[in-house]
Amino acid sequence: MPLSERKLIERIRRSAKRGSADQVASVVTGVGDDAAVLRIPARHEILVTTDFSIEKVHFRREWHTPELVGWRCLTRGLSDIAAMGGEPRAAFLSLAVARDVPQKWVNGFMKGLLNLAAKFNVPLAGGDTAQSAAGIQADVVVIGSVPKGKAVLRSGAKPGDSIYVTGSLGAPAAILANFSKSKRANRSSADLLRQLRPMPRIAAGLWLRQREIPSAMIDLSDGLSTDLNHICEESQVGAELEAQAIPRSQIERNKVSREKEPVALKLALHGGDDYELLFTSAAQVPPKVAGVRVTRIGRITKARGMRLLQDGSARRLQPGGWEHFRKND
Amino acid sequence: MPLSERKLIERIRRSAKRGSADQVASVVTGVGDDAAVLRIPARHEILVTTDFSIEKVHFRREWHTPELVGWRCLTRGLSDIAAMGGEPRAAFLSLAVARDVPQKWVNGFMKGLLNLAAKFNVPLAGGDTAQSAAGIQADVVVIGSVPKGKAVLRSGAKPGDSIYVTGSLGAPAAILANFSKSKRANRSSADLLRQLRPMPRIAAGLWLRQREIPSAMIDLSDGLSTDLNHICEESQVGAELEAQAIPRSQIERNKVSREKEPVALKLALHGGDDYELLFTSAAQVPPKVAGVRVTRIGRITKARGMRLLQDGSARRLQPGGWEHFRKND
Repeated sequence: MPLSERKLIERIRRSAKRGSADQVASVVTGVGDDAAVLRIPARHEILVTTDFSIEKVHFRREWHTPELVGWRCLTRGLSDIAAMGGEPRAAFLSLAVARDVPQKWVNGFMKGLLNLAAKFNVPLAGGDTAQSAAGIQADVVVIGSVPKGKAVLRSGAKPGDSIYVTGSLGAPAAILANFSKSKRANRSSADLLRQLRPMPRIAAGLWLRQREIPSAMIDLSDGLSTDLNHICEESQVGAELEAQAIPRSQIERNKVSREKEPVALKLALHGGDDYELLFTSAAQVPPKVAGVRVTRIGRITKARGMRLLQDGSARRLQPGGWEHFRKND
Repeated sequence: MPLSERKLIERIRRSAKRGSADQVASVVTGVGDDAAVLRIPARHEILVTTDFSIEKVHFRREWHTPELVGWRCLTRGLSDIAAMGGEPRAAFLSLAVARDVPQKWVNGFMKGLLNLAAKFNVPLAGGDTAQSAAGIQADVVVIGSVPKGKAVLRSGAKPGDSIYVTGSLGAPAAILANFSKSKRANRSSADLLRQLRPMPRIAAGLWLRQREIPSAMIDLSDGLSTDLNHICEESQVGAELEAQAIPRSQIERNKVSREKEPVALKLALHGGDDYELLFTSAAQVPPKVAGVRVTRIGRITKARGMRLLQDGSARRLQPGGWEHFRKND
């Protein structure tokens, strides 16, 4: 087995012991016992999120560097904590790797994951390793906390609330869409992909929650249309998006000119892996929160379903796609 | 994909909503948001354990029924919580299943897991599902809690402490050892295996911890010799086991006579999957705790290393095996 379990555990152990006094305080006992022991601030509730990342489903070894895969596995969990308005306290990694995966790949994966963990002061407090039958499977658990009763749910959106999004959308989907046309294009796409380091919006989520601004919040992992639909379903409301307002990422049109252009609207609407925050609020929201741009992109409606307003007409918006608005709607 | 993600999530959701008022109180928000929100008793620390169960590594579809696999996946986590002297609060399941795994298998797996969860009043509060490239991978996370500073670690064993074990050892290893000899033997082994429902020793662990009896504790998942070695390493001590004292499970010699005989000593010493508690203590321990037999099997020594005392002689005991005791030891 190329993956030395003992080595990985030693590495996790060191990672759990490193870090600030604050980190160490939250992890009483990490790797090396039957369970990790974590201390959470008094009068806090705990947040638990698990994300399974699977080769060929969530990433491809020929497209994604191991560092990016490790980084993204943890991004998914941290982004979930951000969407609850919480603070991450510890991460756990369960990693299964097939016999034919080189140790170098595993090292790169761990490097990417630990780099992101260090940025957010999150100790890797444990996990499990095993040999898989084929490919790579990584399950990342992030434990966070939030003051009692203050977690921001998906279910609180009210008709009349505005809809906001942090950052800009569509870059990861646009880059992935360019793959598999030609070898040359793929090299350039891989370069672009390498530059993407999705940054979980922990600080923005915290800032918003502390001021009780969001009535509902979710992170954009499946794509704007799908994730907005989750808020609508859980809150039993509808939504209207303004196509022009949706902040589209700029990506390089080609490698020579380095000229940038906004991604296609459909990629900003339906592409995934943005890890931005989508939230609803009746309050005034400043245009920048914790260093991140915030854009108003629509409003919550009493009428169920989602609509996209564009060039003076309305279309019904579906999770992951759209269709023309029917006359009798 | 035979596994309907939405169906599974609905099932987890129902499971999270079912159950006693006590359960519901610990899970504030389960499936259906970015993260689960759990409420833990005041002045408790939280316990987190993750266990990856992988087809062909931890179980075989031709030997283990899906119910047993689901049951065992959760047993591993609950047993870890028991070994800390903690109480389980919620479980999370990440399940990846290949396209060729029938829905019936997944249903059986869920049934086994949920049956055990119900026995211990543990809500399944979330998780993740995905399609795997090959086979079945299940990562189970169990969150527990324990009063601040009271978790029983592996590192507290002191020279002179007695070594105790709950229940009896070796049955799972003995049954697995009988596989693959003949088809007929395999049928009978599969029957025996079906009867094994390893029961995490939550009540015994709690009883012992509340009376501050164990100086160190671990659950027997890798086998007595390996797990005792973990206590020795973490506590920087050695151990002496009395071969005659080790409680060996009785299993059927053959199907016709139904006569039972104790498993071989090596299976009780090195076999895994017992999910009994191994602990050390300077205190008097009653022969039965929370309905489970407790047996004194040896003592902790200042001299490092493990020894096995048998028929008046001592042998050096290694994790997972043994060798003859050398003269100069």
